[in-house]
Amino acid sequence: VNVLVNGRAVDAVAVADRGLHYGDGLFETLAVEEGEPLLWPEHLERLRRGCERLGLVAPDAVQLRSEAERLCRGQGRAVLKLIVTRGPSGRGYAPNPGTPPTRIASLAPWPEYPATYNRDGVAVRWCDTRLARQPQLAGLKHLNRLEQVLARAEWTHGPAEGLMRDTEGYVIEGTMSNVFLVARGALFTPALSFSGVAGIVRQQVMVWAQQAGVECREAWLRPEQIEAADELFLTNSLIGAWPIRRLGPREYAVGPITQAIQAALEASGGIARAR
Amino acid sequence: VNVLVNGRAVDAVAVADRGLHYGDGLFETLAVEEGEPLLWPEHLERLRRGCERLGLVAPDAVQLRSEAERLCRGQGRAVLKLIVTRGPSGRGYAPNPGTPPTRIASLAPWPEYPATYNRDGVAVRWCDTRLARQPQLAGLKHLNRLEQVLARAEWTHGPAEGLMRDTEGYVIEGTMSNVFLVARGALFTPALSFSGVAGIVRQQVMVWAQQAGVECREAWLRPEQIEAADELFLTNSLIGAWPIRRLGPREYAVGPITQAIQAALEASGGIARAR
Repeated sequence: VNVLVNGRAVDAVAVADRGLHYGDGLFETLAVEEGEPLLWPEHLERLRRGCERLGLVAPDAVQLRSEAERLCRGQGRAVLKLIVTRGPSGRGYAPNPGTPPTRIASLAPWPEYPATYNRDGVAVRWCDTRLARQPQLAGLKHLNRLEQVLARAEWTHGPAEGLMRDTEGYVIEGTMSNVFLVARGALFTPALSFSGVAGIVRQQVMVWAQQAGVECREAWLRPEQIEAADELFLTNSLIGAWPIRRLGPREYAVGPITQAIQAALEASGGIARAR
Repeated sequence: VNVLVNGRAVDAVAVADRGLHYGDGLFETLAVEEGEPLLWPEHLERLRRGCERLGLVAPDAVQLRSEAERLCRGQGRAVLKLIVTRGPSGRGYAPNPGTPPTRIASLAPWPEYPATYNRDGVAVRWCDTRLARQPQLAGLKHLNRLEQVLARAEWTHGPAEGLMRDTEGYVIEGTMSNVFLVARGALFTPALSFSGVAGIVRQQVMVWAQQAGVECREAWLRPEQIEAADELFLTNSLIGAWPIRRLGPREYAVGPITQAIQAALEASGGIARAR
């Protein structure tokens, strides 16, 4: 079994589901190691907060945990994706308050990224597709992801990731990752009050910085400021922290703060380790 | 049978479908009268253009037509919804160019709106939820509809529709309809270059205006300009043209241009008639 829909081992969802019609739902992507979904409490908490913001009934946490365990048991490394939608409904945008949410848990193979990505860093490009500014959805890992699809469709070979700006030209994130820069010993990451996904590892890096006494600020950053950085790295729950090795005209070394963060993420056990 | 997925009479779609994961697709809503989907060529043409803009393989038109006929045959009034997605895929935003699109055709009961809506008009409210400005998706009837869901969830009783502004404060459309105003004998409707859905009936009204010698302009309109109108009406493929009877502090009469448009829409046979 590698898919459970509302706890049942089926790999299909009702055509009437609002996840399909409207993208009316949220998701989480978790790294699984030795059968254990990593950072489970953090992912569940973000899901709960997202449900609150969208007015979705949050799925039962115990049920979700038991479904995740059923899928992950006996697995080595894998990717667990959780989707929660507002459930099925008849025609029209108006939500039906009585309908229970749809829970979808699915397991996918671990993406075998080259070992060099973690060690030496990745090449990154600028995407032309922009992110719209929508404070009501900003930060949420919701199912309206056409912008990411269009951005990711811009290239097929070469760069491991593309960086996206919003419609005002501010850098926000990668198509599947958050971005950090180091300048004069301080960390900066784009503010996400108008668009972007507030990543779990992004949050972990911010907590690490506080504990390590490294200044870390959310800021409105232009491409020039990103490109002028001393160090650059990307984060998400599967990659941990990938140094950026090349972006635009410049090459970047894997710097000491990036390495410290990689070490901290590995030591905390929360992130699948580079092997 | 009232649902066909890729021509098969099943009411479920693969969990792996990108329509569910990303809202990676488009839809059309058609009025059906006496077993006949109305304005079929117009809807199919919009779908085709939408596929082009999203880089989706357009579904086979003959196949889609035969599936629509299979669902609509023997029906009186009903609603036909077509969904086209980029099909199933593995993890990640990158589209898989080889995958055929998913076609979903489904039939729903005709919504029995009160007869007064067409004749006397409807009460309309202002929504707080704003539309983001995203030129790459503007005009498209795509599956990323969280903004409409949030807007429609703002009220449960009373108004038949809510008008939405974009994040800059310009009026764009209703949650499920386009909006027109009449001022000094001319028609105005919001420009849709940054957000909104370019409705089929909206287009028909614009063509009618040209033929009738009534000036019709797309414009950037503020709520005050909407509220100061001589006549106001809403359009979509199911409602045809609903006069707005009340919006904010004012009451509006059903004016002569609104009535002429209602008559023209009914005469053209393209719109389900008020009964």
